[in-house]
Amino acid sequence: MELKEIGKAAVAARYKIENLNTNEKNNALIKVAEALVENSSDIISANEIDMENGRNGGMTAAILDRLKLDESRIRNMAEGLKKVALLEDPVGEVMDMSKRPNGMVIGKRRVPLGVVGIIYEARPNVTSDAFGLCFKSGNVVILKGGSDAINSNKAIVKVIREALCKCGITPDCISLIESTDRAVTVEFMKMNEYIDLLIPRGSAGLIKATLDNSTIPVIETGTGNCHIFVDKSADVNMAVNIVVNAKTQRIGVCNACESLVVHRDILKEFLPEAVKALKEYNVEIRGDKEAMEVCMEDIIPASEEDFYTEYLDYIISVKTVGSIDEAIEHINKHNTKHSEAIVTEDYNNANKFLDKIDAACVYVNASTRFTDGEEFGFGAEIGISTQKLHARGPMGLKELTTYKYIIYGSGQIR
Amino acid sequence: MELKEIGKAAVAARYKIENLNTNEKNNALIKVAEALVENSSDIISANEIDMENGRNGGMTAAILDRLKLDESRIRNMAEGLKKVALLEDPVGEVMDMSKRPNGMVIGKRRVPLGVVGIIYEARPNVTSDAFGLCFKSGNVVILKGGSDAINSNKAIVKVIREALCKCGITPDCISLIESTDRAVTVEFMKMNEYIDLLIPRGSAGLIKATLDNSTIPVIETGTGNCHIFVDKSADVNMAVNIVVNAKTQRIGVCNACESLVVHRDILKEFLPEAVKALKEYNVEIRGDKEAMEVCMEDIIPASEEDFYTEYLDYIISVKTVGSIDEAIEHINKHNTKHSEAIVTEDYNNANKFLDKIDAACVYVNASTRFTDGEEFGFGAEIGISTQKLHARGPMGLKELTTYKYIIYGSGQIR
Repeated sequence: MELKEIGKAAVAARYKIENLNTNEKNNALIKVAEALVENSSDIISANEIDMENGRNGGMTAAILDRLKLDESRIRNMAEGLKKVALLEDPVGEVMDMSKRPNGMVIGKRRVPLGVVGIIYEARPNVTSDAFGLCFKSGNVVILKGGSDAINSNKAIVKVIREALCKCGITPDCISLIESTDRAVTVEFMKMNEYIDLLIPRGSAGLIKATLDNSTIPVIETGTGNCHIFVDKSADVNMAVNIVVNAKTQRIGVCNACESLVVHRDILKEFLPEAVKALKEYNVEIRGDKEAMEVCMEDIIPASEEDFYTEYLDYIISVKTVGSIDEAIEHINKHNTKHSEAIVTEDYNNANKFLDKIDAACVYVNASTRFTDGEEFGFGAEIGISTQKLHARGPMGLKELTTYKYIIYGSGQIR
Repeated sequence: MELKEIGKAAVAARYKIENLNTNEKNNALIKVAEALVENSSDIISANEIDMENGRNGGMTAAILDRLKLDESRIRNMAEGLKKVALLEDPVGEVMDMSKRPNGMVIGKRRVPLGVVGIIYEARPNVTSDAFGLCFKSGNVVILKGGSDAINSNKAIVKVIREALCKCGITPDCISLIESTDRAVTVEFMKMNEYIDLLIPRGSAGLIKATLDNSTIPVIETGTGNCHIFVDKSADVNMAVNIVVNAKTQRIGVCNACESLVVHRDILKEFLPEAVKALKEYNVEIRGDKEAMEVCMEDIIPASEEDFYTEYLDYIISVKTVGSIDEAIEHINKHNTKHSEAIVTEDYNNANKFLDKIDAACVYVNASTRFTDGEEFGFGAEIGISTQKLHARGPMGLKELTTYKYIIYGSGQIR
């Protein structure tokens, strides 16, 4: 199908589904989940073609692993949809309703955004995850997945569309752009007439390309150069635990800690303990001069570049500061507005850090790894926003909605 | 000053002012208001240069009128700032705070966006209005006004900066881009490193140019192809009043009615009355075939183009439909997602219209002219958003803020 045709079908579908009731949506999600499991052999066969192409094309083992689908992964995708069915439906909530002096009653009603475009790379599970969240929040989704996963995505979308049809719901709730031509992707990013929001999910390069080319509103997600500041009053044991957890519990995620900022007055007490613990996980430590002086053998020099780097790897940078103000300035200059933490026993410094750090999530005495839809109690997330408009931090179902003012009058004129 | 220098100064200023308390901000707003009045002769002299250039350049009377500043208009600008001082400070509000199962306490704190860029045309009063709203909400503002008003804007910004200095507040809370080079404007639209939000205020052309060029998040404002649907059950008298008010009360505004959609069953009863009333204001009426048949002499033919047109003039289009569903489809196809109204006595049709119309503001039995920050009770507005992300409809102080998650832990790791 041509891009424009997909857009038109999506707009038509969105008007059909925006007022589906919660039971209808939940029922469809469960039916789609069952269909994925029932058709798993078809999906796995299609995935095998992508895997074969990937192997022939010299794809790395890590990317091949992300691309791979098997019975258990398809069951997980299905479970994900069933979990979304259990989440509260955000659509229809009415907020701030009040009567104006002239007698008009005004309120804000939560409504779907309309059509959401998702651009992603070779993770076929995103196909069903994104569908589930968009559908439950009353949105139509148009997907542009990575060309490496095209056969897998086609197979998954086919199953979802067929299952929707069986529920009497238009299959155009989900569409896949099958062309793998880059020009088509750029055209997709300019379809303001049909698409209300574009969410790129993937590498920093993908996000930048989307921002540069899109004329549709974009939500930037998932770049995290996250810091932990160990204040001079920190509980050393707690600080070491938090740093090790935030750095090593999962290495390739956007809420992992990439940089350690340490108050000079606690450096000698804290750093050797932290270095010892990090070394057990083979973390490479790149520090400034003062840090190196404390832990000579275990730290290599950090460049200014390091302090801007999201490693997504067993590497961490260390910066020494003389005050909390210096720490805050350093972090606000180098961070990506994702998640930042202070470890402190000082009441005023805890509050100052919460006040002055510019990030989606600011922590006192906890690991940055908690920045996550599940952990925040949203159940699931479509991504973690690092921009300031519309939604910040983990984006759940509510963040996939907007509102409209509804006004009940009785003939008022101005 | 170079653009980059302005950007850097703005970012430095934003960290300084984001935690000013409400009294400090209100006090400064009042001092700035007083300074504008005290320095009105300087501002008027500068404005005279712009007026002279405008007259020599063949500027229309309407635009010259927008450009003109006199004692009374400057006093109005000052009053506007004092009114903003009286509005509630949105910054600092904490929402949805709760304890998670692991003991962490999570909440959303309302914070300023940071740096807001405003691009506007030859309305020098926007200079102080935009400053007032941005400053009260804790934001720094960078202004790019129309080249026709450059001398006026320079004079106003100079007065504001000096008054801020006298209050001990950094003058970089407001900056004006003085270059009138278009390339500089385009560069401004790509300053993601420094600017969090861009709001174009002005013509559809300005807004489109901003959307096409900006890599910064943009809020689209103020294009309003607003409809009134007169249902078959409408109170004819009420319908005529609402249509006349929405079309003629103020002609050049985005919430004026541009198109009338009439149910066939009430056409003969309603349309002659409406036409008669509109003709008293010399409104030109462009209708479809059925409308023309009812009011032969007073209606000229409408083209499909007419139904997409925001006239901002004494012109209205008329479309006849056979059902509320047809009306909804027509409106959703042609509107700009601004404000739409139904006039009806039918309970189910009122609800259907509220449910199915996609617009920032959906009215039952009231004029579209109420879509306005003052009328909605926000006190003032920076514009009326016609997009769906972040804010919809009139944008007041709250809509110039974002939130950050603040998390109080006690050593939690994942």
